[in-house]
This record gives sequence, C-alpha cells and structure tokens, in this order.
Amino acid sequence: MSNPVAGLLMTWRGRVLPEWVDYNGHLRDAFYMLLFSYATDGLMDSIGLGESGRATTGHSLFTLEAHINYLKEVREGATVEVHTQILGCDSKRLRIYHSLYRSDAQLFLAGNEQMLVNVDMAGPFSTPFSPAVLECIQVLVSRHRSLPSPEHAGRHIALPGERHG
Amino acid sequence: MSNPVAGLLMTWRGRVLPEWVDYNGHLRDAFYMLLFSYATDGLMDSIGLGESGRATTGHSLFTLEAHINYLKEVREGATVEVHTQILGCDSKRLRIYHSLYRSDAQLFLAGNEQMLVNVDMAGPFSTPFSPAVLECIQVLVSRHRSLPSPEHAGRHIALPGERHG
Repeated sequence: MSNPVAGLLMTWRGRVLPEWVDYNGHLRDAFYMLLFSYATDGLMDSIGLGESGRATTGHSLFTLEAHINYLKEVREGATVEVHTQILGCDSKRLRIYHSLYRSDAQLFLAGNEQMLVNVDMAGPFSTPFSPAVLECIQVLVSRHRSLPSPEHAGRHIALPGERHG
Repeated sequence: MSNPVAGLLMTWRGRVLPEWVDYNGHLRDAFYMLLFSYATDGLMDSIGLGESGRATTGHSLFTLEAHINYLKEVREGATVEVHTQILGCDSKRLRIYHSLYRSDAQLFLAGNEQMLVNVDMAGPFSTPFSPAVLECIQVLVSRHRSLPSPEHAGRHIALPGERHG
C-alpha cells in the first residue's frame, strides 16, 4: 500500500494531553482544531513566517475559514502527527489541508481544510505575501500539485438527501 | 434593525481567557471552536443530553463535521455569547449553526456549522435519538424553521475563481 503522507510536510507531532479530553473520554472536537492550529504554526515556520519572519515582515497569517471532518475518536496519551498539503494560493491567500494521523498505525483520524490570509499587523489589513514568503509557498505548491486531492477537501455540510447550491 | 439572534437559543456566554489568545494578541482559531464546542454542550443540556440525560440514555453526541467562518478578531477579556439555530435533523443526525457575538455590541464575530450524530456509548456506534430527545429536537426544528438560513451555512472552501463540484 502506498504511503498516504509521502510528499507532504509534517507540521506537528505530539501526545494528546489530559486537558484536551472531554466527558466522552476522547479528544474534544475543539482540540483537534488546536492540533491543526499548531500545525499551521509549523507551516508558518517552513515558509518564513515563524517568530523572526513575523518580526521582520510585520506580517502574520489569519484563518478565514476552516472545515473539519472527524473520522476516528482519539484517546488521551495517543501520539499523533499532522501532515500538510498546500492546495493552492494567490497573492495573499493560502488554501491548505491538514491530515491528522495516529503515529504508530498511520491511522487517519481527521482532516482539516483551511483558508488563510496574509495580514499586515500594522492594520491589521490583508496584504500580499512578502516576496521571500511567496517563493517558499510556490516551491511547496509546485511540489504538492501532483499529489492527489484529499478525499474531504471542498466539502460542504448537509444531511443525507439535502442539497446546497 | 431587527435583532439577528431573535428566536435563537443562547447556548454559551463568557469571557475570553488569557490562555486562549495567540501571538497575534487575538483569540486563537481553535479556541473559537472551543466556545462553539461549549455551546454544543449547552444545546445538549436543552435537549435532554446533559450529564444526567447521557447517564439515563447511554447516548451522547459526536461531532462528524464542522465549518467555521472567522469574521472578526476577538481580544482577551471580551464577553461573548453563542446563539444557536437548528438547521435540520433526521433520526440520528443534527445539523446546527452556532453564531458568536460580542455581548456588548451584538457584533457578529464568527459562525460555525456542525453536523452531530447521536451515539450509543456502549459501542460507540451511531443510533437513533431516544424518543424524549427527538421530541425536544423537533420542537426546536419547528421553532427555527421559519428563521432565515445563516449567511455562511452550506459553504465550501475555495480561492476566488476556484470551483468545486
């Protein structure tokens, strides 16, 4: 079987902490999103928008929109990792897909699509990526372009039988 | 101007804690989702799936899918509230929409659509709502049916100019 994370960027790895678990005994829905948020921080480090890059450029990324699919419960103490694919970009936006896996079994736990926007923190207002950051992003875009699109990317929420425009 | 939360259920209200704020000085994306997650707990209380209802029925709700739109930054200490609309249900699924407002100005901060499924925790496996819970849900569905659909409900993520099936 082919490796589903081959070619992707590992952007976060760690253990599920006791304070992230809810009354069902599983990682609470919001804390999946926290792991994905940390993964976005990891991605920012890779494209020159880590702490020093933010200080130099005066830019940061804001999340505009996110979609999560929850596929498996995750228990306290599990070691998990996030692998990230860049789905596209324009001059100031970045569309990405984070996939959460259990580290031992490479079991797919959840997926998260995000639309991010580059922001000049002096405003804050949206602004084009700095040239160095855009170059890093374009390298990743061209590397990830040939990978299959994630199964749950581009979804909307609907009950079975419901349709949306 | 009409009250945008009239007829909705207030499912959470509280202050933005210091530990929820990120390096941009704003509520981190994942902690918007935490407020929405608490709001789902509030909704569960209203439909007979609070702590005692979960103990009696052996059921709980799992989040299958969530979509968030981030509209405004939120600062530490702000008092915010979540108002919830039931968009639909079937025998075991619930489609809901949480709207986050700043309490003082009724400023709309973020929206979150969720698909929830009723689960028998003995499995866990999905199972129809218990009759008493379904009755509570149907009362809300009929009360909310005539309200306008939230602006961001049913969305998918795309860059400007991109199209998805």
